[in-house]
Order: sequence, then structure tokens, then C-alpha cells
Amino acid sequence: MSLNVCIFGVSGYTGSKLLYLLSKHRKVNIKGVFGKKSINYSLPDLFPNIDNLPNIKITNYKDFNFDSIDIVFSCLPHGKFQEEVFLKLDKKLSVIDLSGDFRLQNISEYENWYNLTHKSKKYLKSFIYGLTEIYKKDILKAKYVSNPGCYPTSILIPLIPLLKSKVLGDGHVVIDSKSGVSGAGKKPKVQNLFAEISENFFSYGVSKHRHYPEICQEIKKYNDKVSLTFTPHLLPLISGLQSTIYIDKKNFDKNDLKQILKKFYKGEQFVKLYSDNRIPEIREVKNTNDIAIQILNDYSKKKIIIISCIDNLIKGAAGQAVQNMNLMFGFNESESLI
Amino acid sequence: MSLNVCIFGVSGYTGSKLLYLLSKHRKVNIKGVFGKKSINYSLPDLFPNIDNLPNIKITNYKDFNFDSIDIVFSCLPHGKFQEEVFLKLDKKLSVIDLSGDFRLQNISEYENWYNLTHKSKKYLKSFIYGLTEIYKKDILKAKYVSNPGCYPTSILIPLIPLLKSKVLGDGHVVIDSKSGVSGAGKKPKVQNLFAEISENFFSYGVSKHRHYPEICQEIKKYNDKVSLTFTPHLLPLISGLQSTIYIDKKNFDKNDLKQILKKFYKGEQFVKLYSDNRIPEIREVKNTNDIAIQILNDYSKKKIIIISCIDNLIKGAAGQAVQNMNLMFGFNESESLI
Amino acid sequence: MSLNVCIFGVSGYTGSKLLYLLSKHRKVNIKGVFGKKSINYSLPDLFPNIDNLPNIKITNYKDFNFDSIDIVFSCLPHGKFQEEVFLKLDKKLSVIDLSGDFRLQNISEYENWYNLTHKSKKYLKSFIYGLTEIYKKDILKAKYVSNPGCYPTSILIPLIPLLKSKVLGDGHVVIDSKSGVSGAGKKPKVQNLFAEISENFFSYGVSKHRHYPEICQEIKKYNDKVSLTFTPHLLPLISGLQSTIYIDKKNFDKNDLKQILKKFYKGEQFVKLYSDNRIPEIREVKNTNDIAIQILNDYSKKKIIIISCIDNLIKGAAGQAVQNMNLMFGFNESESLI
Amino acid sequence: MSLNVCIFGVSGYTGSKLLYLLSKHRKVNIKGVFGKKSINYSLPDLFPNIDNLPNIKITNYKDFNFDSIDIVFSCLPHGKFQEEVFLKLDKKLSVIDLSGDFRLQNISEYENWYNLTHKSKKYLKSFIYGLTEIYKKDILKAKYVSNPGCYPTSILIPLIPLLKSKVLGDGHVVIDSKSGVSGAGKKPKVQNLFAEISENFFSYGVSKHRHYPEICQEIKKYNDKVSLTFTPHLLPLISGLQSTIYIDKKNFDKNDLKQILKKFYKGEQFVKLYSDNRIPEIREVKNTNDIAIQILNDYSKKKIIIISCIDNLIKGAAGQAVQNMNLMFGFNESESLI
Repeated sequence: MSLNVCIFGVSGYTGSKLLYLLSKHRKVNIKGVFGKKSINYSLPDLFPNIDNLPNIKITNYKDFNFDSIDIVFSCLPHGKFQEEVFLKLDKKLSVIDLSGDFRLQNISEYENWYNLTHKSKKYLKSFIYGLTEIYKKDILKAKYVSNPGCYPTSILIPLIPLLKSKVLGDGHVVIDSKSGVSGAGKKPKVQNLFAEISENFFSYGVSKHRHYPEICQEIKKYNDKVSLTFTPHLLPLISGLQSTIYIDKKNFDKNDLKQILKKFYKGEQFVKLYSDNRIPEIREVKNTNDIAIQILNDYSKKKIIIISCIDNLIKGAAGQAVQNMNLMFGFNESESLI
Repeated sequence: MSLNVCIFGVSGYTGSKLLYLLSKHRKVNIKGVFGKKSINYSLPDLFPNIDNLPNIKITNYKDFNFDSIDIVFSCLPHGKFQEEVFLKLDKKLSVIDLSGDFRLQNISEYENWYNLTHKSKKYLKSFIYGLTEIYKKDILKAKYVSNPGCYPTSILIPLIPLLKSKVLGDGHVVIDSKSGVSGAGKKPKVQNLFAEISENFFSYGVSKHRHYPEICQEIKKYNDKVSLTFTPHLLPLISGLQSTIYIDKKNFDKNDLKQILKKFYKGEQFVKLYSDNRIPEIREVKNTNDIAIQILNDYSKKKIIIISCIDNLIKGAAGQAVQNMNLMFGFNESESLI
Repeated sequence: MSLNVCIFGVSGYTGSKLLYLLSKHRKVNIKGVFGKKSINYSLPDLFPNIDNLPNIKITNYKDFNFDSIDIVFSCLPHGKFQEEVFLKLDKKLSVIDLSGDFRLQNISEYENWYNLTHKSKKYLKSFIYGLTEIYKKDILKAKYVSNPGCYPTSILIPLIPLLKSKVLGDGHVVIDSKSGVSGAGKKPKVQNLFAEISENFFSYGVSKHRHYPEICQEIKKYNDKVSLTFTPHLLPLISGLQSTIYIDKKNFDKNDLKQILKKFYKGEQFVKLYSDNRIPEIREVKNTNDIAIQILNDYSKKKIIIISCIDNLIKGAAGQAVQNMNLMFGFNESESLI
Repeated sequence: MSLNVCIFGVSGYTGSKLLYLLSKHRKVNIKGVFGKKSINYSLPDLFPNIDNLPNIKITNYKDFNFDSIDIVFSCLPHGKFQEEVFLKLDKKLSVIDLSGDFRLQNISEYENWYNLTHKSKKYLKSFIYGLTEIYKKDILKAKYVSNPGCYPTSILIPLIPLLKSKVLGDGHVVIDSKSGVSGAGKKPKVQNLFAEISENFFSYGVSKHRHYPEICQEIKKYNDKVSLTFTPHLLPLISGLQSTIYIDKKNFDKNDLKQILKKFYKGEQFVKLYSDNRIPEIREVKNTNDIAIQILNDYSKKKIIIISCIDNLIKGAAGQAVQNMNLMFGFNESESLI
């Protein structure tokens, strides 16, 4: 069996990473690629560094016949998919949306944090939140998947097993996250110019980042008394993301928590729980679908420190999307990902 | 005596470097700063990392009274100054233009290479080409100065003395130049995003860069048989520029050429002719108004290699502009530059 | 009046930044520069990008006559100064030590965290901790100053006024710090190679960094119940440092804390308390002696977030050292620093 | 059929890239890995970001039984392989040496440029120079392959077809090359520290780089009157290399030369001759075994400009080595390389 797939927004950073992964996938035929600025370019011309691309052109999706298509990936900016594209698509198509459009189940939260009106709200409940290792059972049967944000992926994978096992208690969690700049997309803005980012570092979206309600939504499924502080920072890197997470130390230490994660993620090949004394580094997950995790005691004995690293474009976006597709269609979960 | 100055285009990379240098200048009062995007911002708010800025706002120059102003600097993009701004200014004001508008004395060359109509052509002859160490005598008396391009500065300073002394002959010169990305300006374009420039390197504008006719114009003043190849490349750096220049070896060697430069630039504090075996590095000229030069023999004995490094924003733009102003107004040539 | 100064360890990153600052200082004569690897090199040859250096050579301090010297700066690695150099110096010389040798007043803490025996312990009490804005009165009269670490500088300047005013209470403080790589020194180690640091980011020295006891020592002077978690991270930058500090929100908000800092640091030109909505960036303090501070409310209302940025080589090392020297000798506090 | 392979010098930058490629190769078993600093570490511990590594340890090759081994790769520094290791190996083993030890067929050239005595000189003639696309026929039958240097690979692939077709004539070729820093190896040296390379750029080894005689040796096989100037520069990049090559324009233009290359490399999947107007960029070949080539006319009509980009660690080292192994053992030439 082989799948016919389409990609919306193929020329952005997430879209082109997805294209790269799908081009290596042995069960996938890339049939349609849609974009605006790069319209009419052929795939091989636009992506000379990706081998084995089909010789098709970027087109307008309105001119495309979706009859033979199995699944559609959307890498469009927030809003574009729910406002227009999804509404026009045949609802029989499988869908993986990499934007934030179908992540927040509470419409008013979406409209508040994204400052957009949701025009596909009646489909919201049909979307599974695609945090693969957590919602695998649902994803196996899913038709529509809303792919998680990069920061939430790095934060929820280590935290959810701790929430489930009740060790986290009702405390407050401080999350200090740092991401490469590709997460901001390819739209030309002064603040993302090389001369602005290189040799620089700063916090941004402090306490008002759109990933905050997404993280809260998931956390509250397990314990609605936990509160959190989330501060993203911009690294002078193209891709790579680390979250440094501070939780209250109770009557457990790092090894207890590592045991909980070890057990919970047994058999999960993309969750790399590091052995003692090894600190995850961003380069170790770059170009991989891995999440590298370490848990450390704090000298003050008041906190436990969790370090979590992913490639924001892969496990934090395109890789997790392919992982989800693999599950939805019964392929090997790691096909094209290792 | 103290000068009242204005800056057009203050919020770009060249404009803000110029602002920084002028803020340190003991004989200068910054009286007017003009811009578009940053209009109404106060200087100290816009540039928190520059000390001692006057508490004035970015305004539209049309609302500004130039009566007390002595000199105007333009850091506007190519075309804007000659098309409109300069025409409207009182011609009694001294002017230093950092764009390419008044560099090419041949109008058709300008209109061809810049793809613009020149609306101030009658003033063209009134502008002195501000390559300080070469045209110092003229600059001392100048009212209008056209500040040279960054690449031409790095290339002409080592070559002109060799042309003048006839050692260069009628040969062909190969110039392989590499520049940091700030030279491309602050306009948001995809190709200047961090994610496009970082971890990357490439040639651009091969044989059709606007600095090519500027270099040729100056070279031909001394020898109109010399031809040249000029290939610019983009470095993953904010600022800094190197030209590697290959000239034919004749019956001289590097030491003869170094002697010529040493004699020619005697007393010129910003021309740093390196002692033997020391290779100039871009960081050694960063944040300085220096040009660092080394001349090397080639193993094949067919060529002599000249290496020349500048900071494209300083000696290649704002620094040389201040140096020119210092000369025009009888200040110490290095005031605010060392 | 003019000072004769010497620098130990001049060729490291801190030493050469100090050399640069002192070379611009109008009241300082650089008389002796000591180093090991660069011995016998002349200063102008070793530092071609620093203007106005005296034409002296790097020597062994044992061959140097200190009779006419007023003050000595040590940029030697931890241990070297207290073990040998300081012991041999005439105790009449003024001293500013930029290493950790005289920072911890508790000998066993020093010996434990630095894994070294302290051979100058009898002089420990004679050293003033040179956190300029906090200990200015003592520094004005000091003969020996122990210059603070870069992380402690970024953390203590915002925290001490809050401790003094009791708003901080007895809570726990989470400090997530990020620094450029120059803080690790110039010793060649695989982990500091370009190919290891570029395109990378990671935590290091988690809860066992030598600056931890230094921060604790100072904090405990004001409130010995406050505890803290300190996690340093390495940025792919040469210089620049940010601390993101999380304190418990009590019955105050960010504006109350900003008022406390504003009042405390009134007249302190290097402490830049940012106006609302402006987030400090590392590049805004680069090459300056400033500390830029912002205080923000957290969405969860459980924490207050303090952001603090410095250049680790300047306010975090050489700049603060010069600031201290300026106070010790009655010069303008900002001489050579703005 | 499946191969048993060993790697000498596995922990360096070339060695670990080779390990990565071989770990993905479906016909290869990694049986032995030898190193000094990382001895006794297990492969999976040392390389957490490479999947599917066998759980073996880095050992001393002297303790290893080579009986079942088919091929040995050496990523040792220059000299180490010819001086000792190769001499001790069973001569029946196939060998690919990635150092310069067996590249120069003229012993005195080797001893002069490498400043080493050659202790395996009697085997020199048995080594095939592994420039795959040029010497493919010989490599198919080779037992010992000397893998080319990174600069020579980027330069010889575009030049040799032009030499063969006589269009190059007897002229002089100027080669201005720029490489990322991984080419300098993982040995800790001050000059390769992050703080030395970042924000910097410079020429090095001007006319005395070891790759100069290697390029000359190959060029002279086709035309011994051609001379060349070769200037390497260091880019602030981990990996990636561009050569900008200037040849005399005769009675041909860029299209004639492109036709020659197109014909010569017909069917060679790793040679990417770019279509008109597309300039190769280093990132387009990063992490690939490709060489991207463009040929451009020069405005002066005196030169033709050839641009050639490779990943110095892949096509310039480990990738070409695997490509050679694939040919030597009858595998698909691109196995593990696309």
C-alpha cells in the first residue's frame, strides 16, 4: 500500500522539512504541493538539495483534483487552514494540521490567544491532539490530527507521566524555554534578519505566548491545580529547542522520576532518557525526531530540574507529523524518521 | 566650534552606526534624525545601547527647520536622496551621502547599474568621491561628499598607489570579496533572514554588482587598460569585509609593493599595513575605522595576493563618513574614530 | 594624577578586554603586562586592533620591577593568583583580582568548590567584594578588590535591593542563566571548539557551578532563609549573558519592584532599568558596562520574572574592574567605560 | 553479502561522520572502532545522536583481531597511518585512508609539504587516488584507496573535464577557496576555539597549504603547463566548502564549458551542474555527498568563473570514502549516501 499526499505551505521552514521527510518515505507519493510565493516553481528546482523529488510544480490548491489523495498536511500559518482551506476540502481526506488552528479545544481561548475568529469550530472535536507518545491509541484511529506546538512537545512529554503518577502534586512549574529562530517562520520581518538574531539572545512573548494555553490545556487534563510560568527565549540557531523545567522537590528524587519516565516510555524509540551525568545538547537531537531528557537534583534540594531537547522542526513539527501519519496508516512508526 | 548635524535614514544599519559615532564626537550636536518606520520614537528609546543621545524624536524631514544645521548625512537607500531629498535641501548645507547616488560620474552608468533615473544630475560634478586617504586634499575643501561603497574602499585603497606607481601595468585583476550581511541593509527580505544566512555561504551579484562600475571608474583614472573581475560573496557575519585581490606578478615581489604602500600611506593612521607573516583577520578591524592590508607572494610566482579587511559599516560606510566630516570642518581626523 | 598599572594574564579574553579598556583610559599608563604563552611579544603586535598601546613586551612578572606601579590587575585563572603571584607582590600595591580567589570569605567553601588549597587565606578579609553599585562606599576606600563573577553580577544587582527592602521574603528563587562562551576562557579544550559550540546549546554545571556559593554568600548577607536554584547554559555567542530570575509573587507586582530598584539605583548610570514593555537583549549591552533589567508579571500570577543582561567580559569582568579602579583612585566612575 | 569494517580515529569530525554514514549502510557491520582519547567508551554512549550503532567499545587496534575484517578506514591525522598503523596491518585487508599519507605519489613532495618521513613508501604506488567520478574504473578494482582532500575534490571535479577537453589551455588558474572549520580537526587549539572563529573570517595557509601539491599533481596529469594560485580561507561554519575558480576566457563561453561538464558527468548523480542563473550555496550541499557546480561569464570578458560547493566532511571526506567502498565491493554507488 502506498499513500498519495499533499502539502499546503510547502515552501516555509516546516513545510520544506516535511517535504524532505516525505521524500525519503518508502510508502509515500507526493502528489500535490501548494504555496503562494513559490507558485509555478518545480519541486526539484526549488529544493535542489532534496533528492528524489517528483517533478511536479507548486500550484494553487483550488486548481488541484484531490480525488486520488489520501492525506493532506497543512503547514500554513495560524488561521489560514481553519478560515478557508479546511472548509473547502473533502471531509473524507485524512488531515494533519501543523498550525495551532485545532489545538485548543476551547474556542474562546483560541480566539483570545490567536486573535482570530474560528470558522471551522464544528470540526474542532474531530481533531486528535497529536502528541504521539501520549495519545498514540487515539492517533491510530484518527482521521484528523492537530500536530502539537514545538514548545508544548518538549514540555508535555516529560511532564505528563509525572502528572499521571501524581508525583508532581499541586505545585507550580517554572519552564524556561529556548528555541532556534526557524520556529518564527519564513515571513520576512526585521526582527528575524540575520543582523538582528546573530550575536544576540533575548526573552520574548513572556507569559503571552500562544503555546501557554496549549500547555495548560494538556496539563489540566491530569491535574487542574498545577499552575505554570512559561518564558520562551530566542537562540541564535536555525533549529533546536531546549526547555529547562523546574518542579518542586517533594519526597522523591531524580531517580524516582527517571524510573517513572523509563517505565512510561518503555519501547518508545524517540524518547531518549539520558543516563546519569549526561546533559542533553541541542545538537544531539538536531535533524532527528528524538526528544532527549535528563532529570537532575538541585543543590538546594528545593527543586528538581528537567532538561528536554528537541529539533523544533522535526519532533516539534514535521517529524512528529510523519510519525502520526505512520500510525494512522499502519506503517512502521519510524519510517523515514531514522 | 561645534557642528549641528542631521541624519537621514537613522534607523538602518549604517544610519545607526553613524549615530553611534556622532554621539561620541565631542564637536557634534545631533539636531535632527529622520526616518520612516521609526517615526516619533525618541532616540534614547530606539537606541538604548547608545549613551549620551539627545532626547529628540525621529521625525519627517519635511517638518524640520534646517536653519541652524551645518551638515546633513544621508543613509537613505539608493535613489531616495537624489530623487527627492537632496533637491529639497538648502544647497548651502554641507552634505555627505552614503548611498551610491553621487558616486558614478557617468549618468548613463548610474541609470544602467542602479536602474533609476537621476534627478539631481546637475549636482553630480559638485560631489567629491570621499575615499579619504586618496582624495584628502579635495575633501578638505568639499561641500558635498559622496561616500564610497564598502567593497570599493577595501579594493581601491591598496590598488591606487600601485596604479599610480605604474607597477600594476595593463594586466587583469581578479578580486574575490566577502562581506557580512549588514551591507544588504535592514529591509526585511527572505534572503536576509537568520535561517537563510546562518550556516551558509555563497557568491552573489557575480559580475553585476553595483560596486563594479564604481571600482572601474576609479581604476580608470589611473590606467584605463586595467580590467577586473569582481565576485562578491556573503559571509554569515553581521559586519566585516575582506577582499582577496590577485594581480599579475611582474619583475617585483611583495616587498616592493609593500614599500610603495608604506610610502604612499605614511602618516595615515587608519591604513594598517601588516608586518610580514601576519594575515589580517576581519575581527581585527571590527568596530574600527581601520583598513588592514597584507601583500603576499604566491607559490606559483605568477600572482601577487593582496588581502584587505575593513568593517563594512565603519571604514566602509559610517566611519569614513565621519572621517570626511572631520576633514571638511577642520577637526582632528580621528575624532570619535579611535 | 596618572596611574601606572600592570596586568597579569593579559592575553586571555578577560585580560585583553581589560587591556582595551585601560588603553582608552586617560589617566592610566600600562607599564607591565604578564603572560606565559605570549611572552616576548610586543603589545602592538599581539593586539593590532587596539590603538594607542605602549610599545612594551609581554614579560614574566618575576623579571619586572614594580617600584613605580600603583595598581595590579590579575586576570589569571582561578588559583594562580592566591597560590603564588599575590604572595610575592609588595603588599603596598593596590590589587584588583578578577578570578574567584578572593570572592568566597569562607575558606572551606573556596577549597570545596574550587578544589584548591588557599595559600593567601590571611589576606582574604582584606579584599572587598567589588560589586560596584552595592559596595561602592567600601570600594572607595579599598586597597584590594575581588571582582565578582559574571553570573553573580547579573543576579545580585537586581536581587539585593529586593532583599534589602524585604519584599523577597523567605522564598525560593529560580535562576536560569545563559552565557556566551568567552566566560570559559581561552584555554584550548575540545568542548570550546567552534565545531562544538556553534549550532548548539546546553546546560552545564547544573547546581555545581562555582558561582553558586558566591551568589549564596551575598544573598545570605541580607536574608539567610532565601534558597536558590541556579542553572547556567552555554550560548553560541562570544560574549553576552542573561539571567532569567523567577521569584514568588506576593502582595506586590512588577511595578512595586521596579520602584524599589529605581530608587535604589538612582544616579547609577550603568544600571539601565528598562521602561515598560521593552525586553532587554544581549546585543544592547554588548561592549558596554551596562546591566539592563526588566521586571515582568507572570500570566499565572504566581511568579514575578526578572530579566537581567550584561556583557560577561565587561560589566561581568573587565569593565566592572575598571569601574572599581576609577572609584579607588578618585577618577570619574565612567572614565573609559562610555 | 555484507562487509565487516573498522574505523581508525572514529572520534574526530571525519571519523564520526564516517561512522554515521556506515551506521545507515545496509551492507555494513561496524566491527571495530579505534581511538585514543575516547578509549573504552561504548559507541552508543559516545554518539547518542546516531541510531542503530552496535554496542561495541572504542579500543586500541593492537588488541583487536582483524581476521574477519574486510575493510579498514583510517581517519587518523596525517602521518599516523603510514608511520605505524598501516605497516602493522595485514596487507590483505582493503584500505581507505582519509589522510594525506598516500595522496602524493612523489615522496619528496610528501616529505617536504607534510614535514614527515614516509615509512610506507613502498606501498605508495598501490594506492589509487580516490576521486570517485574521475578514477572510477580504477577504484572498482582497487584494494587500497587514498581518499582525496576536501579542497582538491571541490577543485578537480570541475577542472579535470576542462583540462581533458583542452579548453583550459596553458593558462593560470586562480582558486579562492573557503571552508568551514571542521576541516581543521578536533584537536584542541586556541585558533579553533569558538571565540576565535565566530564573527571572524581570514585567509590561511596562503600558497603553502598541503592541498596545493595535491591539486597540482592531478592537474599536471592532463596539462603540465597549467599553473595555479590557491588561497584557502576559514569560514565561521562547522562544515561546507566553496571554491571560486577563475580561468582565462578564450574563444568559448560558460555554455561551452557547461556542455563539456554535462557530457563528462552524464549519469553521475552526485555531480549537480546547476541550471542557469542559480548560484550554488553551501547549505544546498550540507549533509549530502553532492558537489554543486555553476559556471558564469565575467563582465570583463577576460575570465570565466566556476563556483563549486561541497560538504567538506562528506563529499570532501567521509561520503566520498563510502562512495569508494561501495564501488570497491560492488554495492550501489549511492548506498547510505542519499
